[in-house]
Amino acid sequence: MDTPETYEPLTSEELPSRLGHLAALTSRLGNNPDQWHVEEIGDGNLNLVFVVRGESGAVIVKQALPYIRLVGDSWPLPLSRAFFEYHALIRQSNRDPHSVPEVLHFEEDQALIVMEFLDQHVILRSLLIGGKRVNNLGQRLGKFIARNAFRGSDLALPIIDRKADTKLFLDNHALCNITESLVFTDPYFDAELNHHNAVIDGVVASLRQNIKLKTEAQVLLTKFVTNSETLLHGDLHTGSVMCTEDSVRIIDPEFATYGPMGFDLGMMLANLVMAYISQPAHRSSGELNSYQSWILEVIEDLVVAFTEEFSALWHSERSGVLFPHSLFEDQQHDANLPLQGKLREIWSDALGFCGIEMHRRTLSLAHNADFETIEDVAHRGELEAQNLIAGAQLIIERHSIADVKAMMAVVQKPQMAN
Amino acid sequence: MDTPETYEPLTSEELPSRLGHLAALTSRLGNNPDQWHVEEIGDGNLNLVFVVRGESGAVIVKQALPYIRLVGDSWPLPLSRAFFEYHALIRQSNRDPHSVPEVLHFEEDQALIVMEFLDQHVILRSLLIGGKRVNNLGQRLGKFIARNAFRGSDLALPIIDRKADTKLFLDNHALCNITESLVFTDPYFDAELNHHNAVIDGVVASLRQNIKLKTEAQVLLTKFVTNSETLLHGDLHTGSVMCTEDSVRIIDPEFATYGPMGFDLGMMLANLVMAYISQPAHRSSGELNSYQSWILEVIEDLVVAFTEEFSALWHSERSGVLFPHSLFEDQQHDANLPLQGKLREIWSDALGFCGIEMHRRTLSLAHNADFETIEDVAHRGELEAQNLIAGAQLIIERHSIADVKAMMAVVQKPQMAN
Repeated sequence: MDTPETYEPLTSEELPSRLGHLAALTSRLGNNPDQWHVEEIGDGNLNLVFVVRGESGAVIVKQALPYIRLVGDSWPLPLSRAFFEYHALIRQSNRDPHSVPEVLHFEEDQALIVMEFLDQHVILRSLLIGGKRVNNLGQRLGKFIARNAFRGSDLALPIIDRKADTKLFLDNHALCNITESLVFTDPYFDAELNHHNAVIDGVVASLRQNIKLKTEAQVLLTKFVTNSETLLHGDLHTGSVMCTEDSVRIIDPEFATYGPMGFDLGMMLANLVMAYISQPAHRSSGELNSYQSWILEVIEDLVVAFTEEFSALWHSERSGVLFPHSLFEDQQHDANLPLQGKLREIWSDALGFCGIEMHRRTLSLAHNADFETIEDVAHRGELEAQNLIAGAQLIIERHSIADVKAMMAVVQKPQMAN
Repeated sequence: MDTPETYEPLTSEELPSRLGHLAALTSRLGNNPDQWHVEEIGDGNLNLVFVVRGESGAVIVKQALPYIRLVGDSWPLPLSRAFFEYHALIRQSNRDPHSVPEVLHFEEDQALIVMEFLDQHVILRSLLIGGKRVNNLGQRLGKFIARNAFRGSDLALPIIDRKADTKLFLDNHALCNITESLVFTDPYFDAELNHHNAVIDGVVASLRQNIKLKTEAQVLLTKFVTNSETLLHGDLHTGSVMCTEDSVRIIDPEFATYGPMGFDLGMMLANLVMAYISQPAHRSSGELNSYQSWILEVIEDLVVAFTEEFSALWHSERSGVLFPHSLFEDQQHDANLPLQGKLREIWSDALGFCGIEMHRRTLSLAHNADFETIEDVAHRGELEAQNLIAGAQLIIERHSIADVKAMMAVVQKPQMAN
């Protein structure tokens, strides 16, 4: 492991004295550290997270622990993930301004990031379980994914810079390993860390009997591990988005890695789809239709915004080695044909990653509150079965599912694919 | 550039005094450096190459120059390519013993590799132009490509090792840049370094008008630059193979990079195909049929050997994170279905890369002697046109060309693809 000797986890009590000298904090909180109020709010699986409030404002202090908090120190995890989160935040902020919390300070040896406190913002997953709406949610997420996908790739960057950055993020392999096993592989066999609702035993067995499905899951894993196309957020689910009614911010990119453009898109779609599927357990029948329609709109808006933004950047910012103007515009040839091909590839990849995420969130280690908070296990099992069968169909039929409408038709009435 | 201050190019005269103290040389050549006979034979485009002969044997001393020899010092090229060649040779030798010259000594600051002298061996391209045969040529090349593709990938290596190695080779970007532009992009527009036979002007214009072709060429470039699947030789043409009647060795992997498995296969197929297409200009009609049939056999043998070896390794050495036994064999499921999918993907990629190589060898900077040595420009143009049209068809129809027979049918009677 890479824990430096100087590393020491913060406590709420010690935080003011340890960080009270930093301008990043005093400029926001005021110059009286002994008056600061510190609260540890890390409900995630991996890190310490403190809200620090002072007379003139608040900041977030996030510090990595040298192990997985959810599991304990039996599962070590390198502190360097804070370094990668920091570097990802900086790039995301450049590529899509105001999409992520502002970084105020970073200390590599303490694996510590001081960042903007997102006042009033709530985790999107809780909002979706609670039946709340966010204005322009789909548009905002679609643009974030498109801008990062395009601007982090060889379509936009000088390839020498993209390769140097790929090298940097290749060291984030410990976190990638989690994705490789927990997301892509564990769901499809009886892995040690798996758990699932006994009600769906039969469906789970039939998925694990499906050689075609397992093959496609591994084709998608191959793409994830070998295809260094752009810098991904790497863990873009509804728990990595914080919102108010009018604001959307993306957090927690510690799983950042170079990977295929469809990955973040697919992950986010999966989590919105799971919110959609689980709604019958969270809404009264009076609200259900209208709220599910709103989620559907968000999903459609997201894909439209992704497509429009990616297309606009393709025509206005394509300056890398791939699909150069010398072969198209400079010869009076429309670059729309290659764009359509690229969009089709991203879409079918995204459908595949979407299905994978739907599976792992009901079968592998880390489940989604969307389903986990449903107390009636029989009802939960019914919805989880729908989720699993839809996921399998999305993975297997991804090359022939043309658009969001076709995708949502699968989600609404899935059929066990062979 | 990265030229160290201590770097100094060798001369034939100084070589014995500069390297005479090295056991790597004295153990092969004897202890009398002043008796050694040194000959500079670098006929390549990039490096100094010396044969050093002593009383008891001979060795090769290869030293990189800080520029491209073919062009001169106006085109600098980092010496680090010797470092990557050395590392590639070591890996290739481990993954396929006796396939490459034995490395006897490496000096990083002098960009210098001392290696086994391949006595009696001749460059394969010259043998093919001269109408000579090599026993088991296709089998040997197919096995080399399969063993390196499989054993350098996440199918076999611990992924942490593969990622560390990918990082190492990402620094070889200067050489990769040459491939990116000269191989994939320059052929499809009027690039500065291009040159071609005026006889084929019309065919060249029609290729550059073909938006679908240019799109597919860039799809293949995208795969080449982003898909870090395995360690490639990176420049596997018939000028990188040395043979006697019974021996085959692969040389010159300074373009080594992580890339898609189909790349080396496609490059090698292209160069054999170009040997095939150019034969009517090199053989009397009496020999032509029989020699072309032999090349055809080599191509078929190569693909069969690649497929058989890759399949055997798939079943016997699959120990990486991809397609793990836990999902297949351990559940009594045949891993043949995913293998067939993988082989189909490699094959269609290889056909695409094959077509790209056929194009750049008649349109871009570095042409092949197979065509260049044909003095009758009209006859040359006829064969080059066949080569270009076949290449375009292989690229565009690569997903539906099922096997070698279908590929060679295209090569023999190509039709301009739309």
